[in-house]
Amino acid sequence: MAGIISPSMPVFIIENRAHGNRSYVTMNEGLGKVLRMGAFGPEVIEHLKWMEGTLYPVLKGAIEHAVARGEEPDVKNMIAQALHMGDELHNRNKAGSSLFLRAIAPHMVETCKDSAKLAEVLRFLDKTDHFFLNLAMAAGKASLDAAAGVEGSSMATVMARNGTEFGLQVSGLGDRWFTCQAALPEVLLFPGFTREDTNRDIGDSAIMETYGVGGFALAAAPAIVQFIGGTPKDAVNYTMEMYEITTGENSMFSIPALNFRGTPTGIDVLKVVETGITPVLDTGAAHKEPGLGQVGAGIVRMPMEAFVKAAEAFADRYLGD
Amino acid sequence: MAGIISPSMPVFIIENRAHGNRSYVTMNEGLGKVLRMGAFGPEVIEHLKWMEGTLYPVLKGAIEHAVARGEEPDVKNMIAQALHMGDELHNRNKAGSSLFLRAIAPHMVETCKDSAKLAEVLRFLDKTDHFFLNLAMAAGKASLDAAAGVEGSSMATVMARNGTEFGLQVSGLGDRWFTCQAALPEVLLFPGFTREDTNRDIGDSAIMETYGVGGFALAAAPAIVQFIGGTPKDAVNYTMEMYEITTGENSMFSIPALNFRGTPTGIDVLKVVETGITPVLDTGAAHKEPGLGQVGAGIVRMPMEAFVKAAEAFADRYLGD
Repeated sequence: MAGIISPSMPVFIIENRAHGNRSYVTMNEGLGKVLRMGAFGPEVIEHLKWMEGTLYPVLKGAIEHAVARGEEPDVKNMIAQALHMGDELHNRNKAGSSLFLRAIAPHMVETCKDSAKLAEVLRFLDKTDHFFLNLAMAAGKASLDAAAGVEGSSMATVMARNGTEFGLQVSGLGDRWFTCQAALPEVLLFPGFTREDTNRDIGDSAIMETYGVGGFALAAAPAIVQFIGGTPKDAVNYTMEMYEITTGENSMFSIPALNFRGTPTGIDVLKVVETGITPVLDTGAAHKEPGLGQVGAGIVRMPMEAFVKAAEAFADRYLGD
Repeated sequence: MAGIISPSMPVFIIENRAHGNRSYVTMNEGLGKVLRMGAFGPEVIEHLKWMEGTLYPVLKGAIEHAVARGEEPDVKNMIAQALHMGDELHNRNKAGSSLFLRAIAPHMVETCKDSAKLAEVLRFLDKTDHFFLNLAMAAGKASLDAAAGVEGSSMATVMARNGTEFGLQVSGLGDRWFTCQAALPEVLLFPGFTREDTNRDIGDSAIMETYGVGGFALAAAPAIVQFIGGTPKDAVNYTMEMYEITTGENSMFSIPALNFRGTPTGIDVLKVVETGITPVLDTGAAHKEPGLGQVGAGIVRMPMEAFVKAAEAFADRYLGD
């Protein structure tokens, strides 16, 4: 989602082996009162300190050990497997988080000799079903960065929301942002919150849908509707609709229930404007008052205005007379 | 599946908390050349010795630690979760095995101080996607044993195959076995094997379908067709067909893709005979020559003859004039 990265915060480094570029991402804090949803009370800070002082050293040792043995976690492969295990990799990451724990646990016990710390870390990972989301977001970023700057391409390479505005970038249009007001998500609210508590759409997790998973892969994750509302049929319909606005079907990420069809991948801003269909995102909604954290989760449509601006700029640049 | 249990072999103990009865099951050896598929070469024995000398003590310590803290693995709950993560719990147990590892790993590091052994065990569990199957089979057995001996019930409480015969027991008909020749499974063969290598259907893993999962829950596991053949639509069709011969829909185990409908549960031998539909099982097929192990995996229909015998006995006992 959103949140602040301070200089002392540890990050994962994700490497795009094919193109040599890297991306970076913080560790997932879990759900509820967390910094990335705007909470900053003493318990949030205490938890961040635990992540820095305990979780990070254990994971760092394990990952370095795995890398040295040529057994570094293959995030792209884990995403592909998780899509066959009911994750869509945005609001449901239970399988991906399990696969990451399975892969890294042997290296953890081989590098950390403090069994109390190990147990703390394993318990945190066990209860944090969204832990893998951050790794998957960084994998999406590393893939999409390599798709930027392609002359003549109308594919979106970034979508993001900051709680006020929504913005996107297009591969063939350089670093220019196309922006408009962010949507107000109508999510399934956690107990104790009302519609009026909801802030406008926020976060750079929209990289998942830009990458072709998340809301675009909802058909892979029928169980998610217990968390975000709707029916399993709605989930299939969202994915089918996204094929209308994408440039291709993913060769690596497939959806078993759609007879292993590749996920709809690569949002074409021209198709968005032609069809009037805007991308669907799985989202978590933050409280509009600072300090209160997440209020719910659900589906949100990206606003059309930014796509129209991008398509107009694309026409000016490439389709001029 | 099948295989021998010798007096020195460790077993899991599964407790049916509601009824107080228990069941017992060996630890899963993995795929390929394994004892339960008829292989018995030196590498099979060596692996069994490793399971007895390393895997068992680590798991025993962890499980006893978990039980003492009131955190014993809840197998039924894990089955319910795994059905939402693409397992059907017979030929696909990847999610269940992941959930078990997640739950037990903290207790492992809190009780075993030998990090090399811990790493060996964690690596074995990571690569053994069917590890959870044995726990799930014992859970099915513990549930079904409690359903035995109900006066007037035509529900099957056991189905099993021994490589020659298929047999079943019926709740209202005591300990009597109704048997006939076992089916010859037409499975998706592993590379290097032919149809002629396949032995007749074997194993007591049919407890899974008797329990309402496995072949009966194929709609929950579309990705399984990569392992057993067919299409995801076939998987849905098998589950839909099984509703025709079962007494109810499971209140605990649901299938997201069928709008969270409960799995078809409780095979009614009278319905089997009335409809002509026999139970579908997910199965692993063994080589017909001893010592060679598993040759493939797929779908197999139970033969009708034993159901006819059971229905006739039921009519004699309860529907006499």
